[in-house]
Amino acid sequence: MQAVGRAFGHNFTLEYGDVGGISIDRHGTPLTDGVRELATSADAVLFGAVGGPKWDDPSAPTRPEDGLLALRAHLNVFANIRPVKVYPELTDSSVLKPHVLEGVDMVVVRELTGGLYYAQPKGRTQTPQGIVGVDTMRYSESEIERVLRVGFELARGRRGKLTSVDKANVLETSRLWRATATRLADEYPDVELEHALVDACAMQIVLRPASYDVIVAENTFGDILTDEAAILAASMGLLPSEAGARTPGFYEPIHGTAPDIAGQGIANPCGSILSAAMMLRYSLGLTEEAAAVDRAVQTVLEQGYRTADIATAGDAATGTTQMGDLVANAIG
Amino acid sequence: MQAVGRAFGHNFTLEYGDVGGISIDRHGTPLTDGVRELATSADAVLFGAVGGPKWDDPSAPTRPEDGLLALRAHLNVFANIRPVKVYPELTDSSVLKPHVLEGVDMVVVRELTGGLYYAQPKGRTQTPQGIVGVDTMRYSESEIERVLRVGFELARGRRGKLTSVDKANVLETSRLWRATATRLADEYPDVELEHALVDACAMQIVLRPASYDVIVAENTFGDILTDEAAILAASMGLLPSEAGARTPGFYEPIHGTAPDIAGQGIANPCGSILSAAMMLRYSLGLTEEAAAVDRAVQTVLEQGYRTADIATAGDAATGTTQMGDLVANAIG
Ligand SMILES: CC(C)[C@H](C(=O)O)[C@@H](O)C(=O)O
Ligand SMILES: CC(C)[C@H](C(=O)O)[C@@H](O)C(=O)O
Repeated sequence: MQAVGRAFGHNFTLEYGDVGGISIDRHGTPLTDGVRELATSADAVLFGAVGGPKWDDPSAPTRPEDGLLALRAHLNVFANIRPVKVYPELTDSSVLKPHVLEGVDMVVVRELTGGLYYAQPKGRTQTPQGIVGVDTMRYSESEIERVLRVGFELARGRRGKLTSVDKANVLETSRLWRATATRLADEYPDVELEHALVDACAMQIVLRPASYDVIVAENTFGDILTDEAAILAASMGLLPSEAGARTPGFYEPIHGTAPDIAGQGIANPCGSILSAAMMLRYSLGLTEEAAAVDRAVQTVLEQGYRTADIATAGDAATGTTQMGDLVANAIG
Repeated sequence: MQAVGRAFGHNFTLEYGDVGGISIDRHGTPLTDGVRELATSADAVLFGAVGGPKWDDPSAPTRPEDGLLALRAHLNVFANIRPVKVYPELTDSSVLKPHVLEGVDMVVVRELTGGLYYAQPKGRTQTPQGIVGVDTMRYSESEIERVLRVGFELARGRRGKLTSVDKANVLETSRLWRATATRLADEYPDVELEHALVDACAMQIVLRPASYDVIVAENTFGDILTDEAAILAASMGLLPSEAGARTPGFYEPIHGTAPDIAGQGIANPCGSILSAAMMLRYSLGLTEEAAAVDRAVQTVLEQGYRTADIATAGDAATGTTQMGDLVANAIG
């Protein structure tokens, strides 16, 4: 953000708030009222990532992830837009044969404030037969409709194809989802609606990724499918996300905290950087600046720099800080 | 089965029962009492597949899939064992680069009679705010324990690694799942237990498939992950499944009815054939016969025959019947 500010003559006010494990350690809760208000009053929120083994105790009363979930709900970020971009430069780093990646250009819209993540009842109870755990998947028609509309609108401005993901052969929420998608399709005659079962989609998204344009899925299915779709981009470390037209905007890389490499200085900063680019574009209206950031990432990859996640054998991997500096220097 | 009978001098009694759409059309229910009893009294059940657009109406009172679900529950098939075998002959048909597939040898154990598929409440209700859909994910400790034990036992007889899949950072059922896996691990000191989040696993299963030995997942996660794992095998049409040590045994290919190609005679029969091989091995104790069937499939693939799903451009695809005949002739 400072590099963009310097290059384009802006003065951004950046404020920092702790969420997750650090907030539990310091304040006993993964999201304080103060940080909640800080987020509410901002133009946009750029989120990092939460979670780690330190806070993984299944019997803990609260955990880092609760902070993220509470913030998403508080800001009503019901549609999480996750574009999957394939960099031709990274063909060597991909596990996929090059022909599979030809023409891949998809966006996954993940429902983010409903389903199994939030609905009650949810808990573990001691019964005479032992402990029983319960989670509830609940969706109202209006929750489904608003996120599907984000997908239809996006598809309209792209290749005009919408894949609505569900498990309608088994789940009641999915039957409601499918019926709602079918009903809405009448309002978007320019968009071709296709229904896909989540299991089939989990296979096709890698087998025939170029056949997708916009995919809309409920929270849990979207969580799984977007991590999986990172296979197409060679690394999850490259993928950003945005929250659709909300105020404040909410931006987060799709990756987590990657505890296995914590503290080594080797994480890929591009998912965060590209999320910041989305923030410039969608929340701050700074299109040119956003494009400059996207281009800077592209340039650095073209120059051959690779963090460990996308390095192929033989490449000397670039560290997090150096990668960030390279991108910053390549801006404007 | 007839080819095995001829080659090895057995006389199998095969009885046929309608389940799914055909049963709805004929009897108004996807599973009749008669077929339920037929299955109960058999040594083993070899299941086909159910479902199709004809019965897809979201407001239908029952659907083909309900028949399969009822049968699985009735026979108490709580552990569905889905091995993922990679045929080196199919390297050309795979979307993955060959090095990714080196050393892949995994088995997915999918919980099959619990979770979102079965638990109540489950339904759609009209409310003043519109329709609301609900599904319930419920697991008792004992349901989790028995399926994890199947995984631990399998791992013990293989490479000794068990990956327990959950979404313990968000779901209460998953926290119970994880705690149960951790508790059981003490009883299996020869097995290395690893916990994986379902989203991360959906990525790693394709990025680093050789790192998995036995994976255990709850019903919905297992449904998604096994369809996805079919990417490793080049086609879902090749993958069989078995039900663990149950009587009657329950065997089904992991594929569905593939309505998009129905009636064309081009489906891959190998998933069913290999399920029959599992039936011979695990329910009928006919190890040699089972090996002969496995070998017959291998031989036909080595000879270069390919159904459409695994044909590469240029291959003339072999039809379902011809493929089946080729395998039958290659037995014994
Ligand atoms: C950290 C976790 C709660 C989160 C989620 O499941 O939403 C993450 O996996 C993601 O995809 O953003
Ligand atoms: C047909 C359907 C109900 C079934 C399931 O979800 O279990 C299928 O997808 C499978 O994997 O066996």
